[in-house]
Amino acid sequence: MTKPLVTPALAQFVTATAGRNMTRPAYVAVAVGVVMMVLLTVDPAYEAAHHWVDAVLWACLAFFVFEWVVRLRQAFLAQRGWSYATSGRGLVDAMGALGVPVAIMLGVNPKTAWLLGVFWVLKVVPGVPGLRQLRRVLVLESGPLLSVLMIFLMVLFLASVAVHFLERDVQPVAFGSVPAALWWAVATLTTVGYGDVVPITPLGRLIAAFVMICGLGVFGLWTGILATGFAAETRRDNFLKTWESVSKVPFFAALGPAAIADVTQMLRTMDLPARTMIIRKGKAGDCMYFIADGEVEVDLPGKKVRLGEGAFFGEMALLGNNLRSANITTTRVSKLLVLDLVDFRMLMARHPDLAETIDAEARRRALENK
Amino acid sequence: MTKPLVTPALAQFVTATAGRNMTRPAYVAVAVGVVMMVLLTVDPAYEAAHHWVDAVLWACLAFFVFEWVVRLRQAFLAQRGWSYATSGRGLVDAMGALGVPVAIMLGVNPKTAWLLGVFWVLKVVPGVPGLRQLRRVLVLESGPLLSVLMIFLMVLFLASVAVHFLERDVQPVAFGSVPAALWWAVATLTTVGYGDVVPITPLGRLIAAFVMICGLGVFGLWTGILATGFAAETRRDNFLKTWESVSKVPFFAALGPAAIADVTQMLRTMDLPARTMIIRKGKAGDCMYFIADGEVEVDLPGKKVRLGEGAFFGEMALLGNNLRSANITTTRVSKLLVLDLVDFRMLMARHPDLAETIDAEARRRALENK
Amino acid sequence: MTKPLVTPALAQFVTATAGRNMTRPAYVAVAVGVVMMVLLTVDPAYEAAHHWVDAVLWACLAFFVFEWVVRLRQAFLAQRGWSYATSGRGLVDAMGALGVPVAIMLGVNPKTAWLLGVFWVLKVVPGVPGLRQLRRVLVLESGPLLSVLMIFLMVLFLASVAVHFLERDVQPVAFGSVPAALWWAVATLTTVGYGDVVPITPLGRLIAAFVMICGLGVFGLWTGILATGFAAETRRDNFLKTWESVSKVPFFAALGPAAIADVTQMLRTMDLPARTMIIRKGKAGDCMYFIADGEVEVDLPGKKVRLGEGAFFGEMALLGNNLRSANITTTRVSKLLVLDLVDFRMLMARHPDLAETIDAEARRRALENK
Amino acid sequence: MTKPLVTPALAQFVTATAGRNMTRPAYVAVAVGVVMMVLLTVDPAYEAAHHWVDAVLWACLAFFVFEWVVRLRQAFLAQRGWSYATSGRGLVDAMGALGVPVAIMLGVNPKTAWLLGVFWVLKVVPGVPGLRQLRRVLVLESGPLLSVLMIFLMVLFLASVAVHFLERDVQPVAFGSVPAALWWAVATLTTVGYGDVVPITPLGRLIAAFVMICGLGVFGLWTGILATGFAAETRRDNFLKTWESVSKVPFFAALGPAAIADVTQMLRTMDLPARTMIIRKGKAGDCMYFIADGEVEVDLPGKKVRLGEGAFFGEMALLGNNLRSANITTTRVSKLLVLDLVDFRMLMARHPDLAETIDAEARRRALENK
Repeated sequence: MTKPLVTPALAQFVTATAGRNMTRPAYVAVAVGVVMMVLLTVDPAYEAAHHWVDAVLWACLAFFVFEWVVRLRQAFLAQRGWSYATSGRGLVDAMGALGVPVAIMLGVNPKTAWLLGVFWVLKVVPGVPGLRQLRRVLVLESGPLLSVLMIFLMVLFLASVAVHFLERDVQPVAFGSVPAALWWAVATLTTVGYGDVVPITPLGRLIAAFVMICGLGVFGLWTGILATGFAAETRRDNFLKTWESVSKVPFFAALGPAAIADVTQMLRTMDLPARTMIIRKGKAGDCMYFIADGEVEVDLPGKKVRLGEGAFFGEMALLGNNLRSANITTTRVSKLLVLDLVDFRMLMARHPDLAETIDAEARRRALENK
Repeated sequence: MTKPLVTPALAQFVTATAGRNMTRPAYVAVAVGVVMMVLLTVDPAYEAAHHWVDAVLWACLAFFVFEWVVRLRQAFLAQRGWSYATSGRGLVDAMGALGVPVAIMLGVNPKTAWLLGVFWVLKVVPGVPGLRQLRRVLVLESGPLLSVLMIFLMVLFLASVAVHFLERDVQPVAFGSVPAALWWAVATLTTVGYGDVVPITPLGRLIAAFVMICGLGVFGLWTGILATGFAAETRRDNFLKTWESVSKVPFFAALGPAAIADVTQMLRTMDLPARTMIIRKGKAGDCMYFIADGEVEVDLPGKKVRLGEGAFFGEMALLGNNLRSANITTTRVSKLLVLDLVDFRMLMARHPDLAETIDAEARRRALENK
Repeated sequence: MTKPLVTPALAQFVTATAGRNMTRPAYVAVAVGVVMMVLLTVDPAYEAAHHWVDAVLWACLAFFVFEWVVRLRQAFLAQRGWSYATSGRGLVDAMGALGVPVAIMLGVNPKTAWLLGVFWVLKVVPGVPGLRQLRRVLVLESGPLLSVLMIFLMVLFLASVAVHFLERDVQPVAFGSVPAALWWAVATLTTVGYGDVVPITPLGRLIAAFVMICGLGVFGLWTGILATGFAAETRRDNFLKTWESVSKVPFFAALGPAAIADVTQMLRTMDLPARTMIIRKGKAGDCMYFIADGEVEVDLPGKKVRLGEGAFFGEMALLGNNLRSANITTTRVSKLLVLDLVDFRMLMARHPDLAETIDAEARRRALENK
Repeated sequence: MTKPLVTPALAQFVTATAGRNMTRPAYVAVAVGVVMMVLLTVDPAYEAAHHWVDAVLWACLAFFVFEWVVRLRQAFLAQRGWSYATSGRGLVDAMGALGVPVAIMLGVNPKTAWLLGVFWVLKVVPGVPGLRQLRRVLVLESGPLLSVLMIFLMVLFLASVAVHFLERDVQPVAFGSVPAALWWAVATLTTVGYGDVVPITPLGRLIAAFVMICGLGVFGLWTGILATGFAAETRRDNFLKTWESVSKVPFFAALGPAAIADVTQMLRTMDLPARTMIIRKGKAGDCMYFIADGEVEVDLPGKKVRLGEGAFFGEMALLGNNLRSANITTTRVSKLLVLDLVDFRMLMARHPDLAETIDAEARRRALENK
């Protein structure tokens, strides 16, 4: 009797697991597996509960094997088995599923083999939001970033040889070879400064001081490049996310393409789950909202009004009335466009017809609510 | 006879204490209380003056209890007792008032119990200017900041396991377990670099060098994100603060909304207490002022002229005359709008009619003063 | 018989070596030479393979001498021998060729003399992309950077003297003289913090804390300056690289100069080697391409279409069809102009005639491919 | 006979010394004095040459006393004695002149008294270029900077108390009191990380890791604020410096004020001493120059042409001819306005009439030179 119930649930689970995104159980398995792997290395903890630790680790491993097999099967069914198996995600999944058992089979000490479980953390990479954005910055700015890396390596190398030359007689262990001196140089140039190896001759210290100041410079250049790239990327990302939604709102659709591009730069999208309070009565407000997708419920005294796609609300806070006059909640998953007070004023200044429309609607609502 | 005098003062004090903002006595109590709490832990200092330290600590505590009770009463009278009691401020106030006595009652060593007084410093949080602005940056940029944090944690974790694997035999105490290796990794990746634990094998050092360079990268991304967000927020904040005042100045009110938005971006507001010198005769000047609120006194030879809301002054410095020709002082709390030389030129270029008005007034004044 | 074959190859090699840019063998020689130089200082490695290390080092040196002589001869033939010999590159080449042999001849221990091989790394400097850009930033921002350096040095000096005064009696070795205290100060102000020398008196620690916070400030200023300069320089560099190509594309040539300047800011150039896949069928696309130079091959079902200079492709991804519909590969070295989705929309908004042209071509192609 | 010669020289020296700016002898005195002061603290150096060191120090001191007296006299003659004596510069001069002798008179050990000579370095502060600009950034951004400082102090304090509580039993010396824990916290939060004091309990290390990550955040915020402020300030500073010169060049004077403001943002001023080569024949050029003040000499084949105020040169490099065709040198101190290739194109696009003028002149010159 339970079978008909179990099978669809299992089928659903298999489908979810085969999908591109991590499922909730997968996140739990990664978190639990990694914590257990850490506990394994803490001798007192492991001795106290080694049965539990082992059991949980094997369970996590079993899940990852299952996940990999399901995904592999799904991919082969869809005629793209090799493309998945050799993709980054496929390799991470394979590593997570096979790394530990293969190592154990090859005779590696189990405690050591389980350390390979650390690669499980790589499974969450595709789920990190904004990682794509960071990658684009790194790719687009790779030219200057590599230049700074070259300068970094050159300073590193020249300083190591110089300090090796100056300190090798006084500190033969710490600076007796160039690789040893490189260890000092990298810790100094990155401003980490362990202090385990430190020059003691006056000239060696002079070079060290120079390396430290270069470290500041490298840092500054690096940050400057990333800040520049990031600013551009943030603008771009926001524009793309917003553009789609803007053209769906009838309020803006009447505008020409130039005005839409203008408006898009002023709006910010907000994705909300169902039953989320957007506006709380009595709070100060500094933005208005357009509904690009979904529905909200306005909790007016005595009645509840629902607003659907294309409607806007919260405009009264921008027209002089600072305190929100009603609670507003989403009724289902919704995508809103947020217009900030500052941008509202800019918009009104540049597109007086929009101002007129919003103003008229606000007056109509105020009348209605009285 | 003293009662009628005391009661209003007390009532006023209670009212001030119940308000949202910190009163001056409250700041003093926090500062003194915290210093005493520190002294309590310094054995020689405490032994020398333990009566004083104890007395002052109890006095501070009494004040905080009083403050909390007054605020709680006020909130319940205003029908929002629970909302205050469970708000951040309410919890901080409760912690400050009850933490130490409850700990002492539970049998904690008094010297330890008083350490809870450190939470008193949280009381000044709402009074820190610009904190709201910082919070908005952190909220709006939370996506990319979290991505960087994820990268940070992943590098941390992978590096810890790798170095644990490579160094555990050579340094069983420092790298014998993954948590111990994590301690090394976090100190390295943040470029703190205590140097209490340092890898010594060549491969371990190679990984350490990689972690250090990643540390620079994480730092750079972090800073880039915050710099980008901060630039946008600063512009927004300034616009909001200035907009209100601009529309109150008749000089600008005649402009259309597009021009007002334009002008707002060029102005900066300045809040001044009474009797503050704004312009000192003979100093070089590079900005002019519009009075949005308040009054100033121009100290001309032989007479004193007062300028009220809507007036402007200091324009001569921007029209060729570099040195200020008179002292100008506020007569009461005033809000000024500052127009910098650069923006003045931009404004004059884009709105020649404003230039005409300012020029005419400057010529009239020059004539009058001759 | 081999002579006729060898001579042109040698002649070609000589010509390539004499050129401005590093040849591939030169990069190899630098890399190998420097690695050998490092191995020389690692006693176990050198003892195990000293014949090999010596042989390779002499071979590298021979190559650098050959390179220098060839370049010098070439320069003198072109009447600019002294200008080359005294230029930065000439001096680096001379140093690389003569440094080690001269040192050995002067009786320096060979192991020490070979350390001069570190200067070989300077040979790659002219080949680092983006270095010119970094140099421009440093030159243009040299004013504020020097100011920050002055502040840095002043804090350094004042703190050193203060800590020397406070700590010299307690730690006569570490803080007994101002130069010794300067060593501490520079490691602290750059936030390196070796910890080999640390103040222990309360006042000394107070000053140290102040120096650390100043270190953060200096860091911040430095980064702020570099970030500002870098942002401006990146825009400029991209404009220059793109401008040339834009005016060559007939599609844009019809626009007036103001529009061309506008368009140039939106495009990004991309230099691609032959037979590189630009667009992969089925991938999501977010940019279109204009061919400024070169040729691409579109792999349509049943036929291959070649597009030459001035043509554009990938526009369908921007007109609603998110997935690329064909593989596109370069047939020879090509220079493309990339127009991102965001900028495409801006462009269409501001220049509707361009939008019309792209739209018409896209429709024509869609018809043709059906 | 020598008197008439000496007196004017002395008078001139006195006048120069009394001026606002540091004279060259004053810079030398500061540098030499400070070096001697440092040598005084290095026992072997001082023992070897104490007569010389003492003599030079007294000579420097004598110069600073002379300088202070001359300036004081000058100020009192100009009726502003007290304003100078109590200004920052006056106090620094007084400190430099009186500090050491007063300390010696009060019975301080001379070696210690001479340490006060460190304040001599403050004399160079007014001469540091760009310091005014940095100060403006710090003043304008003081609000957010103080907020970050408050966050910094709060984290510092809370972490110190927490770690003091957790570690005081295990490490009574290092964490036995809150001030001792503060020392650890400040070294950690600024990412200096001496490592002299390090938490060893697991919870203490957890808090330490949190403090380190906060350190990154504080750093990032700080830098973000300074970068934002600096970008705005750089633009403003450049505009102010350039505006004056632009309006003097007849070429631009014909433009309306809006266009002048536009042009000003594109130009950069350059101050050059006499006989400086601006353009070297055969070099690649990417900017043109307008003479705002001064004169240049163009070294054409067979003749030398002089160009005065208002003329422009180097425009051919921007009109297609990449290599400079003649050496151009200043004949006296000159102020030039530099127009970069990028901005040249922008300018030509927006102001076609300017383009026409430059083009016509370039053609005329090309004809003339043929």
